[in-house]
Amino acid sequence: MVSAHSGDFVWRAGGALALYAERGYDVRIVCLSYGERGESQGLWRQEGMTLEKAKAGRRAEAEGAAEALGAAISFLDLGDYPLRIDDAGLDRIVGAMRSAQPELLLTHVANDPYNRDHDAAHEATLLARQVAQAAGHDRSTSPIGAPQVLQFEPHQPEQCGFAPNLLLDITPVFDRKRKAMECMGAQAHLVQYYTDLGLRRGVQAVRNGGARSIVQAEAYQRVFPIVGDVLL
Amino acid sequence: MVSAHSGDFVWRAGGALALYAERGYDVRIVCLSYGERGESQGLWRQEGMTLEKAKAGRRAEAEGAAEALGAAISFLDLGDYPLRIDDAGLDRIVGAMRSAQPELLLTHVANDPYNRDHDAAHEATLLARQVAQAAGHDRSTSPIGAPQVLQFEPHQPEQCGFAPNLLLDITPVFDRKRKAMECMGAQAHLVQYYTDLGLRRGVQAVRNGGARSIVQAEAYQRVFPIVGDVLL
Amino acid sequence: MVSAHSGDFVWRAGGALALYAERGYDVRIVCLSYGERGESQGLWRQEGMTLEKAKAGRRAEAEGAAEALGAAISFLDLGDYPLRIDDAGLDRIVGAMRSAQPELLLTHVANDPYNRDHDAAHEATLLARQVAQAAGHDRSTSPIGAPQVLQFEPHQPEQCGFAPNLLLDITPVFDRKRKAMECMGAQAHLVQYYTDLGLRRGVQAVRNGGARSIVQAEAYQRVFPIVGDVLL
Amino acid sequence: MVSAHSGDFVWRAGGALALYAERGYDVRIVCLSYGERGESQGLWRQEGMTLEKAKAGRRAEAEGAAEALGAAISFLDLGDYPLRIDDAGLDRIVGAMRSAQPELLLTHVANDPYNRDHDAAHEATLLARQVAQAAGHDRSTSPIGAPQVLQFEPHQPEQCGFAPNLLLDITPVFDRKRKAMECMGAQAHLVQYYTDLGLRRGVQAVRNGGARSIVQAEAYQRVFPIVGDVLL
Amino acid sequence: MVSAHSGDFVWRAGGALALYAERGYDVRIVCLSYGERGESQGLWRQEGMTLEKAKAGRRAEAEGAAEALGAAISFLDLGDYPLRIDDAGLDRIVGAMRSAQPELLLTHVANDPYNRDHDAAHEATLLARQVAQAAGHDRSTSPIGAPQVLQFEPHQPEQCGFAPNLLLDITPVFDRKRKAMECMGAQAHLVQYYTDLGLRRGVQAVRNGGARSIVQAEAYQRVFPIVGDVLL
Amino acid sequence: MVSAHSGDFVWRAGGALALYAERGYDVRIVCLSYGERGESQGLWRQEGMTLEKAKAGRRAEAEGAAEALGAAISFLDLGDYPLRIDDAGLDRIVGAMRSAQPELLLTHVANDPYNRDHDAAHEATLLARQVAQAAGHDRSTSPIGAPQVLQFEPHQPEQCGFAPNLLLDITPVFDRKRKAMECMGAQAHLVQYYTDLGLRRGVQAVRNGGARSIVQAEAYQRVFPIVGDVLL
Repeated sequence: MVSAHSGDFVWRAGGALALYAERGYDVRIVCLSYGERGESQGLWRQEGMTLEKAKAGRRAEAEGAAEALGAAISFLDLGDYPLRIDDAGLDRIVGAMRSAQPELLLTHVANDPYNRDHDAAHEATLLARQVAQAAGHDRSTSPIGAPQVLQFEPHQPEQCGFAPNLLLDITPVFDRKRKAMECMGAQAHLVQYYTDLGLRRGVQAVRNGGARSIVQAEAYQRVFPIVGDVLL
Repeated sequence: MVSAHSGDFVWRAGGALALYAERGYDVRIVCLSYGERGESQGLWRQEGMTLEKAKAGRRAEAEGAAEALGAAISFLDLGDYPLRIDDAGLDRIVGAMRSAQPELLLTHVANDPYNRDHDAAHEATLLARQVAQAAGHDRSTSPIGAPQVLQFEPHQPEQCGFAPNLLLDITPVFDRKRKAMECMGAQAHLVQYYTDLGLRRGVQAVRNGGARSIVQAEAYQRVFPIVGDVLL
Repeated sequence: MVSAHSGDFVWRAGGALALYAERGYDVRIVCLSYGERGESQGLWRQEGMTLEKAKAGRRAEAEGAAEALGAAISFLDLGDYPLRIDDAGLDRIVGAMRSAQPELLLTHVANDPYNRDHDAAHEATLLARQVAQAAGHDRSTSPIGAPQVLQFEPHQPEQCGFAPNLLLDITPVFDRKRKAMECMGAQAHLVQYYTDLGLRRGVQAVRNGGARSIVQAEAYQRVFPIVGDVLL
Repeated sequence: MVSAHSGDFVWRAGGALALYAERGYDVRIVCLSYGERGESQGLWRQEGMTLEKAKAGRRAEAEGAAEALGAAISFLDLGDYPLRIDDAGLDRIVGAMRSAQPELLLTHVANDPYNRDHDAAHEATLLARQVAQAAGHDRSTSPIGAPQVLQFEPHQPEQCGFAPNLLLDITPVFDRKRKAMECMGAQAHLVQYYTDLGLRRGVQAVRNGGARSIVQAEAYQRVFPIVGDVLL
Repeated sequence: MVSAHSGDFVWRAGGALALYAERGYDVRIVCLSYGERGESQGLWRQEGMTLEKAKAGRRAEAEGAAEALGAAISFLDLGDYPLRIDDAGLDRIVGAMRSAQPELLLTHVANDPYNRDHDAAHEATLLARQVAQAAGHDRSTSPIGAPQVLQFEPHQPEQCGFAPNLLLDITPVFDRKRKAMECMGAQAHLVQYYTDLGLRRGVQAVRNGGARSIVQAEAYQRVFPIVGDVLL
Repeated sequence: MVSAHSGDFVWRAGGALALYAERGYDVRIVCLSYGERGESQGLWRQEGMTLEKAKAGRRAEAEGAAEALGAAISFLDLGDYPLRIDDAGLDRIVGAMRSAQPELLLTHVANDPYNRDHDAAHEATLLARQVAQAAGHDRSTSPIGAPQVLQFEPHQPEQCGFAPNLLLDITPVFDRKRKAMECMGAQAHLVQYYTDLGLRRGVQAVRNGGARSIVQAEAYQRVFPIVGDVLL
C-alpha cells in the first residue's frame, strides 16, 4: 500500500488492510510523507506547532492506526504539499516492493484535481512497480511479478473520474477500521464522514448482488485486468 | 448469454460457456437472430439459397456448436441486419431470464460501429435485466437478482472502446471451443483467427500475473462492479 | 422537470423544486410513468396488489410529495420497465414544455446501466426540447427558448459517468424535502439514504468554497454551457 | 452523403461535395427530411405558410444548392423534429447505398445534444451501411464494400465531442460553396457564419502543416481507421 | 490569472479580466514566462534580436496590454519552450496566491498537444492552489480558501478536449480587449483571429439562451463544481 | 522516430520504417535508452552480465535491426527503468529534430500503465517538437515545421486507450521487418508474437476496405489532424 500522506491509508483502505491482516497476510504500508503541512489542520491550530512536531504527531497517530489494523508501517518522509519523488525516493519505494514481493498494491487515483500529491503517489507506484520488475535493476534483490494495482476511493470520487469496479465487503473488520480512524486526531472531522461512506458503499454492494449480510464496504478501481478462471 | 447472431457466442465466449458447463452449471444461450442475412457468407455463395434455408443451416451449425460446448440453446428469430427488438421480443428475453434466474449474463459491447445489431443486443440485455428485476412485472414468475453483465470481445476491440478487465483462462476447455468453432461452416474463415486470438489473450494473461500454465484466454469487460471479500 | 417514474423527482431533485417554489417560481413536474411495476416494492408486498392499485397508490404518494414541495404535478402514464415513449407521448411532453415555457429543465442522466427508463427520459427531454423550439411545430402554441437542462444525481453516480458541476445549497428547504420523501411509502428504505446523501453533498459544497452555513446540498450536471456575465 | 435536413449538407460539407464533383466523382446527397418544421425559420415568418409550402420551398433551395455544388440530390421526406427512421425508411437508405456503391459516406456526428435528428441520421447511416453489406439482404442488388464514414462539423463542435482528424482544403471550390449557401434563403443568417468558419479552419489547416495556399477548409472526423500505404 | 507566456492572458481571457477590473475587482496577472523564445515570431524577424531584447519587448507589450485591461501584472521569468517550474518557481506562485487571496483563478487547459508549456501552467496552478491551502505552509502568510479554477480557451479547442461550460458576455468591455490585443506587436496576426472568435462565441452565447444584446463572448471550462443556490 | 528503448522501434514500427527507407526517405531512429535494465531479459540470464555489457549487446542488436530496415540510428543513453529526460536530454532530441527537419514523427502512446518510460518518450517527443518550432531557440539551427506525430501500437493496446486510426500496409517490406526482429536476441520470445500481430492487423485492414493483397499491417494513432485535399 503506497499512501501519499500518513492518513490516507486509514480513511480509504483501512478495511482492506484489516481484512488481509486478519487473514494472516503480511500487510505493509509505505507513507511517502506525513501529510505534515497539508493534512494536519488539527495540529496547526495548537500553539507553538512546528514542522518537526507535526511530523512526530502524525507519525504517532499513523503508527497507532496501523497497529489497530494489524499492518506494518514505514515512512519515507519525502515532504508534502507538494510531494516530490526524486530518483532516490523512487529507489526506496522500489526497494520496499522488492523486499515485500507484493501480490497486490493499493494506491491513489491518477488524477485528483484537489490534491496533486495523490497523483504523484499513483505515478510513483506504477513507475516503481515497473522498475521493480526489471531484470537489470539492483542485482542483489529479486524482481517482482505483475501485482494488480487497486486505486482506493478519493475524497470526491466524481471529480476524479473514479469508477469503482470492486466493492469490498469490510463488515467483519469494520470495528478495527473505526478504531484506526479514531487514532487520527489531526483529522477528527473525517471519522463520521468515512463511517457514513462505508455504510453507503455497503448499501451499494447489496444492490449490486452482494450478500445481504454486508453492512460496510470500500470501493476500489483496478488498473490492470483480472486474470483468473472465474467470471465475476 | 445473449447473442445477437447465432455465431457470436461461439467465437467470442465459447471458452467461458464450456468452462462453466464442465463445472456443472446450467449454461443457456439465447440467439436473438440466426445471423441469416448478414453473417452467413458461406451459405449465400451456394446456388439457390433462401432465407429459410440460411436460417435452417445456421440453426443446425449453432446447435452443433452449443452441444460441443455443453450448453442449451434457443432461438428467438427476431431477424438480423437490422436486428429490431420490439416489446414482444423483449418480453421473451425477460421470460428467459426469469426462467433461468442467472448468476451472470454475457453479451455484446455497447457501441460497435461496424455492427449495430451488437449494440441492440447489449441494450436489450440491460433493459431485459431491469424488467426481469421488477416486482410488478408478470406476477406468475419470480424477479431475478442483480447478475453481473460481462461484455465479450468484439471483432475489432479498439474501435469499440473495449477495455477488458478480465482475462479468463480457457486452457482446459480450448479443445471444446475449437470443436464448436469447427461447426460454424458458414464462417469457416474465422476459425484460425479466433484460435490465434485465444493464444494472444493467453500470452497477455500470463504477462498480467496469471499462472504460466495458461495457454488460451478470453477477454471480458464487466458492466457492474464486482462485490466480494477479495481484492483482485 | 421530467421524471421517469413518479418517485425520482422527490429523491433526487426535491430540494431544487422546493427552493424554486418557495421563491415564487411556477414549478411543474411531469412523471412519464408511475414506476408502478419496477419502483413500488413496498406496494407489491401487499396482498392483492394490481397494476391499477399500484398506479393509484403511487399517484397519491407523488401528489402528496409534490404538494409538500410546492410544485404542480402531472402524469403521462406511459408505462415503466420498460418506459417507451412513442410519438404521441413525445407530443405530450412537447405540449407541456410549450405550455410552461420553462427557463430550466431537470431530468435524468444519459446513461444509467441499472435503469434504461432513466435514459429514455433523458433522451425524451432533449428531443422534446428540440421539437418545442421548432418554428413549424404546432402553430397554435409558441416555441420555447433555449432552456438549460440539468441532470440530477443518479442512484449510483460513478457507474453512470455522472460528474456534478453544480452543488446546490438546499439547506433552507431541506425540511420540505424530508416531508416529501416521507410521502413515498412504497420506497421508505430510501429516506435515510437520501438524507445522508444530502449531508454528504453539503460537506462537499463547503469544501468547494461554499458558505459554511450549507448543511444539505444536491448535485447536478448541466448539459449545455452557462451563458452569463459572471465567472464562477 | 446522408443529411438529416435539407440544409445540413450545404453548410457543413458543401466544400467536400463540390471538390469531388469537380474531380468527376458521382456525388449524391440523400436528405432524410426537408427540415421543414425545425430549420426553416425564414419561411415560417411568412404569412400563410403551411407544412407543404415549407417543404416545397426548402426543396427548391436544396436543389439549387446541390446544382451549385455539382451533386445529385434526393429527398426521403421522413419528417423532422423529430426525424424518425423506421424499417421502410431504412430500406430506402440501404437501397440508395447499394445503387451508389459509395467509396465514402458523409454524415452527422453521433451525439449532438442540441439536435437529436442529427444523431438519428448518424445512426441510420451506420445501420444502413451494415445492412447494405449483408450478403443475404435483397438478392437483386449487390452488397457494398466497407466505405469510410466521415462525420462533418456540427454547429457547436465542443458540445458534441467533435474531435476533427481531417482538415480538408476547400479553397479551390469555395466559390461554389458560397453560391450554394446563398441558395438557402430560409437560413440566410448562416452564410456569414459558415464563411468565417471556413476561414478559421483554413488558418488551422496551415498551422497543422498544410500548404500556405490554403484559405478555407472543412473539418471532419472519421469513424473507421484509414487503410493505406502512407503515413500521414 | 496564471499565464504560461506573456501573451496568453490577452487573447484568451482579456475580456474576463477587463470585465472584473471595471467592476472594481483587484485583477492580477502572473506571467510564468515572457514567451520570449516560442511566441515572439515578430521580434525574431528583426535584425540583432537577443533573448534579453525579446524579453524586454514582450514585457513592454504585456504591460501595455495589462494596463489597457485595468489589471496588475507580474513576471516570474521562468523561461519558455520549455517552461519548467521547479520548487522555487512554485513557491513564488504560491506566494502570489496567498498575497492575493483570490476568489477565482484563470489558467490554461490540462492537455494541449501543441504546447506543453500550457499544460505545465495548468498543473502549476492546481499544485500551487493546493499548497497555498495548506495550514502548515509558510506560517507568516494565510492559507487561501477554495477558489474555482477556470480554463480559458486554447488555440485549437477540439484537439485539447476543451468542452466549454461557460460563455462569458464580454460585449461591454470588448473595446478594452481590442486595445489590449493591439499592444501585442510580436503576434499581430492574431488580432483578427481573436476578434472573429469573440463574435463566434457571442453567436453561440445567444443560441444557448443568452440575451440578444450579446455580441462578443469568451469560453471557459471550470475544473471544480459551482456551489450556490441558483440552478443555471 | 523516438523510441524509449532500443527494441521498441523494431517490434512496433519496423514495417513503417522499412517502407519509407525503401522509398528513399531519410529514416532516422533516436533511442532514448538501450532498454538495458528492463528489456534485456535474455541478456541478464547470462552469467557475469553487467550494465555496460547489456548496453553494448542491446546496441549491437539495434544497429543490426536498423540496418535491416534501412534506417540510421543513434542512441542518447539516458537510462531506462526509469527513463528520465532532463533539459540536456531534451536539447539533444530537439537538436536531432532540427537536424532532420522531419515530415513525420513516430513515437509511443501517452499513457501505458505497464511502462511509464513509454509515456516519458511520448511527452518528450511532443515537447521537443514544440521547442524545435520556436523561433528563439538556438539561432544556429532552423525551426522545424509542424510534422504529424503518429503513435505506434503498444504491447497491450486496450489498456493504453489506443484507438488506431491508420492501418498501414507493410506487406511489401514484411521480410525486412522479420529480419530486423530476428536481430533482437534479448527479446526473442517476441518474434512470433509480432509476426502474428502483423497478420491480425492485415486481416483488419482488408475488413476496413483495404486491398485484398494486404497480408501484414501495422496500426497507428495520430495526434494531430491530417491536412489535405482528399477525404479518406
